[in-house]
Amino acid sequence: MSISVAVAGATGYAGSEILRLLLTHPAYQNGELTLGALCANSNAGQKVGEFHPHLAPLADRTFVETSLETLQGHDVVFMALPHGHSGALAHSLTTVAAASGHDAPLVIDCAADFRLRDAQAWEKWYQCEYQGSWAYGLPELPGHRDAVRAARTVAVPGCFPTGASLALYPAVQAGITDGNLSVVSFSGTSGAGKGAKVANLHAEVSGSAKAYNVAGRHRHTPEILQNMQELTEQELTVSFTPVLAPMTRGILTTAFATTHATLEEVQRLYEEAYRDEPFIQLLPYGQQPQSKSVVGSNNVQIAVDVDTAAHRLVITAVIDNLVKGTAGAAVQCMNLMLGWPETTGLYTVGLAP
Amino acid sequence: MSISVAVAGATGYAGSEILRLLLTHPAYQNGELTLGALCANSNAGQKVGEFHPHLAPLADRTFVETSLETLQGHDVVFMALPHGHSGALAHSLTTVAAASGHDAPLVIDCAADFRLRDAQAWEKWYQCEYQGSWAYGLPELPGHRDAVRAARTVAVPGCFPTGASLALYPAVQAGITDGNLSVVSFSGTSGAGKGAKVANLHAEVSGSAKAYNVAGRHRHTPEILQNMQELTEQELTVSFTPVLAPMTRGILTTAFATTHATLEEVQRLYEEAYRDEPFIQLLPYGQQPQSKSVVGSNNVQIAVDVDTAAHRLVITAVIDNLVKGTAGAAVQCMNLMLGWPETTGLYTVGLAP
Amino acid sequence: MSISVAVAGATGYAGSEILRLLLTHPAYQNGELTLGALCANSNAGQKVGEFHPHLAPLADRTFVETSLETLQGHDVVFMALPHGHSGALAHSLTTVAAASGHDAPLVIDCAADFRLRDAQAWEKWYQCEYQGSWAYGLPELPGHRDAVRAARTVAVPGCFPTGASLALYPAVQAGITDGNLSVVSFSGTSGAGKGAKVANLHAEVSGSAKAYNVAGRHRHTPEILQNMQELTEQELTVSFTPVLAPMTRGILTTAFATTHATLEEVQRLYEEAYRDEPFIQLLPYGQQPQSKSVVGSNNVQIAVDVDTAAHRLVITAVIDNLVKGTAGAAVQCMNLMLGWPETTGLYTVGLAP
Amino acid sequence: MSISVAVAGATGYAGSEILRLLLTHPAYQNGELTLGALCANSNAGQKVGEFHPHLAPLADRTFVETSLETLQGHDVVFMALPHGHSGALAHSLTTVAAASGHDAPLVIDCAADFRLRDAQAWEKWYQCEYQGSWAYGLPELPGHRDAVRAARTVAVPGCFPTGASLALYPAVQAGITDGNLSVVSFSGTSGAGKGAKVANLHAEVSGSAKAYNVAGRHRHTPEILQNMQELTEQELTVSFTPVLAPMTRGILTTAFATTHATLEEVQRLYEEAYRDEPFIQLLPYGQQPQSKSVVGSNNVQIAVDVDTAAHRLVITAVIDNLVKGTAGAAVQCMNLMLGWPETTGLYTVGLAP
Repeated sequence: MSISVAVAGATGYAGSEILRLLLTHPAYQNGELTLGALCANSNAGQKVGEFHPHLAPLADRTFVETSLETLQGHDVVFMALPHGHSGALAHSLTTVAAASGHDAPLVIDCAADFRLRDAQAWEKWYQCEYQGSWAYGLPELPGHRDAVRAARTVAVPGCFPTGASLALYPAVQAGITDGNLSVVSFSGTSGAGKGAKVANLHAEVSGSAKAYNVAGRHRHTPEILQNMQELTEQELTVSFTPVLAPMTRGILTTAFATTHATLEEVQRLYEEAYRDEPFIQLLPYGQQPQSKSVVGSNNVQIAVDVDTAAHRLVITAVIDNLVKGTAGAAVQCMNLMLGWPETTGLYTVGLAP
Repeated sequence: MSISVAVAGATGYAGSEILRLLLTHPAYQNGELTLGALCANSNAGQKVGEFHPHLAPLADRTFVETSLETLQGHDVVFMALPHGHSGALAHSLTTVAAASGHDAPLVIDCAADFRLRDAQAWEKWYQCEYQGSWAYGLPELPGHRDAVRAARTVAVPGCFPTGASLALYPAVQAGITDGNLSVVSFSGTSGAGKGAKVANLHAEVSGSAKAYNVAGRHRHTPEILQNMQELTEQELTVSFTPVLAPMTRGILTTAFATTHATLEEVQRLYEEAYRDEPFIQLLPYGQQPQSKSVVGSNNVQIAVDVDTAAHRLVITAVIDNLVKGTAGAAVQCMNLMLGWPETTGLYTVGLAP
Repeated sequence: MSISVAVAGATGYAGSEILRLLLTHPAYQNGELTLGALCANSNAGQKVGEFHPHLAPLADRTFVETSLETLQGHDVVFMALPHGHSGALAHSLTTVAAASGHDAPLVIDCAADFRLRDAQAWEKWYQCEYQGSWAYGLPELPGHRDAVRAARTVAVPGCFPTGASLALYPAVQAGITDGNLSVVSFSGTSGAGKGAKVANLHAEVSGSAKAYNVAGRHRHTPEILQNMQELTEQELTVSFTPVLAPMTRGILTTAFATTHATLEEVQRLYEEAYRDEPFIQLLPYGQQPQSKSVVGSNNVQIAVDVDTAAHRLVITAVIDNLVKGTAGAAVQCMNLMLGWPETTGLYTVGLAP
Repeated sequence: MSISVAVAGATGYAGSEILRLLLTHPAYQNGELTLGALCANSNAGQKVGEFHPHLAPLADRTFVETSLETLQGHDVVFMALPHGHSGALAHSLTTVAAASGHDAPLVIDCAADFRLRDAQAWEKWYQCEYQGSWAYGLPELPGHRDAVRAARTVAVPGCFPTGASLALYPAVQAGITDGNLSVVSFSGTSGAGKGAKVANLHAEVSGSAKAYNVAGRHRHTPEILQNMQELTEQELTVSFTPVLAPMTRGILTTAFATTHATLEEVQRLYEEAYRDEPFIQLLPYGQQPQSKSVVGSNNVQIAVDVDTAAHRLVITAVIDNLVKGTAGAAVQCMNLMLGWPETTGLYTVGLAP
């Protein structure tokens, strides 16, 4: 019997990327997984081919409304909606399923709604009511893989927290930093979504770099802090600076903290932490990651270094914001939740040049 | 027993793209196909990871020399060398195999050496000795699929001729043009190869467009003409203009000819020609192809139109120059030559945005 | 006494480019020219610095409404509005000036409203009432320089017609073509304006090329035809194909026609036509123009060639769509209308790399 | 009598940018300044138009060799050579001039040779013999304007140190930081020069970001430290991370340090420091600089902020690496050395979009 999958928010970049990955997933290709409702609000009734011409096999499929009616009855529901919508929808799906004696679908949410475990932090940063937290879909952080495997609802991490957390976690866990973490992340424009905004026009962005939401104003700051603080008793601060880069995909994370550890110690920590991770490549010393190397893949490439004159730990890491930063993480969680091999249908080969 | 595959010219863009496609090919993943020698000349002895960090699973493999010794004994040899090298190498492989009582390997050549059937044209355009022609690896052109299936040596088409030929063939074959074909093709910079040239620096190319080898000076001109002329008795001319565009991958082909056919007639011709082609999508009327829609895939997206005031047929088509324009075509031919389903391991989903 | 200049439509790309050129114009720097009303509709009351941070000297100026009140009383009014608005505004300015016994301002309109001399063509292409034509602001075309000099109202040409007309005029005037002109123009995204549209987002455009309004559907087609047809009795057709390129500024025009002229004849024609033009550089044979060479400048760089096998004239030309294609042409016309040297304040040096 | 200017290294990006600025300099346009020798080594004898088609007025000039013969006899010599060449050349020019009873030319060096005042630091970072230091051409730093005005030889600062120093100096001078400075700078590819390197090909860089020379390995680190340390007795460390960004021009500097100052205190410091600087714009609170706003201009746009949760000073600043970062600074110094108004011929208007 085939697993039926629905996608809410299928016209946006996260939604189309989930579809891209599912279309080439072996389970889709051998019929174990079928694509059910492709939901969109204002664009319901339109053809997928008009919005996502790259998804050629779906060109003649039609978007349907995002509603309880269209989403219920599936085994897995991916949600790629703006924050604030997932909770009510997930609750209704559960209620309806219970009423009819069925299991609720597995829900994998790409929005921020269920990522934070601190109600006050949520309400401060998102200005809407706190609804709790779900299993956090970053299996590479200690403890989270098992939690995802056991969960029926998963919150996919934010793209910046994914890069920052994987860049910093082995050092923070080992307690080799002074606890004042600095992260500067250079992000492609697909991270800003498919909304029509002047600031994201090609003519505005091309050939230009711009920081935004600096000095602790980006909503991914508390999520990075949560991920790091759960590893240690040491009190931490996180200074996070996102930069909009003139590229479509990819995040280059540069992360820093004061340290007195040696390069060898740092390398050993990272090697141990990531030795068995199928999507993480620790680069040979001297090689720096470039964001294009992981485009289209679920890979994370990381380089570690120590600035001995300034006593600074210097970690650089790249991900594809739409894959490991969103849709790839979502599919990775689906694999775990369904008991499939974690890497199924996820690329470990990037698209370059 | 596993098919062993070697790649000559594995450090360049065509070579790395063949490797990218083979790594995600089902036959590689289930062990039916293994990657043998990865050949490079000046870089023999170096790690693949230094050159192609995106090919993470091959990071620790080492390039070997391009020689008879390293290439012999494989079942399939992909050649991605500058023109002028394939002939001698293929001849030696055949001789050695015969001497040892084995079959010569299947050879799939991405260079221009065996594409042209006219010795004079070859010598005029390439200034070196003509060595004959091989099966021409564009299965979508009439007659070529069967020829490739039966061949032991195949010449992969040039990237521009692939786009131009698929844009024009149904119209030329039907005789609805005046025979004076015009093609203007916008190509990404990966088409210029990985050689270190000032003209291809990011600082030179970014934000800029430039035509080159205009007025019939590009070597792909006789190849386009050959492909079109074999379809018709009508005498043809081809005016071809390549433009270097500030993008990495992709070719947008715009093709024109005087016609008195109606739009409906033209649409019908193209629908009939491409109805059963797995990699070709004829777009709904009014939708224009964009090159990014096919990036990473073996797809060709085509739109047809007629300018009734100027009596011009207007065809636009997009391919990824490194996939359908090179490495994807090469793998498509390998599939045919090995008797595998033609689409195996080739994407029909592009990477966008 | 200082010339007072107003700009209607000052928040858009054409408007900001006019301001950029005026700020570095010697007449502004020595006080002969002052910047009066900077008009914007929905953004009236906001600071220029928020919209155009590159115009540092105007950062603290405030946009005012676009109205008769704000525009009257100036000596020169540049209009950079969507088509359909210039006529009524210009008429009111004239009426008010007459009533008060003053001269009406010189009006230089960057929209399409007064470019076409054929009422039927206007109404067919623009679906609104024809209001006549003004002097056509392309001084390099025969007869137009004197007309602009004598005019009080000038229509600035479209960006594509500027490139196409200058690429083709000497050949068309000399009658060396068969009259079936083909133009494929590769344009940067600033040509699409500053409106917030999904299709013009960086994530959509970057790394991609796309033709649009093909097969004679672009409104610049009748303008190119008008410019060419006024040079000859020969009946002409124009097939025009615009392509959106992943670059911000610049147009690369490639223009073709069947010819039996020799390269020498063609070169002589172009040398004679452009010998004394301060903004046009005919490149040495063998050198192709690249669009970045003219960015920021009012230059036009042109290369001529003949494809002797296909009997095709092949002309390539580059302009900056916002300068020679819009704001530079507007300032060039202002210089002529005010009796100043035509090149005053206009760059003949591009910004590269 | 006209000032005669020579440029050594005129084929590179720094050299061509000096020429661009001189061509539009009022002193060139009114004949007070003439362009003498345009020197290039391997390309001597070739036309400027082949290398720099954007410098249209110089298209027919010819490069000459870089030698004492070609450089002597000028009033001003700009040197835009790789480091290690300026010292011997400058010494010879002085000797020859003295022997003939003339003044030595003013020499403005864009290389690193005479920037560092610490011989040991020089030899450690540049592995060649120390030759002393010249006036440091960053007039906006305390004390340097007068030094440049009085100097006959000036060392133009590195592009990264210019951005970093202007971002940090008011805070460091006021002693409001803990002295551990962090700088992450995103640079366009023109900063890597016009050398033909695979790593700088468009196909490699486009759509990708990559850090390099991290952890204190970039040669601009000691220069930043020197600039900051001369302002304070407090012992400083500098952690500097350069990132190659997929854009041609521009540097976005993000600079951080622990602080307990308030935003108001920081703003006041920067306002006081930069109130009278013609090229520096402190942006209104809430507006972030984007690198494109200053392209082509000598401007520096800066925003200050404080992260109160993480106790971090957050400064962002943009420059055009080829203008304020190199050639504009060089011309600014020339103006000061010749007693001309400092801003002559330098743009305070950027080229955007």
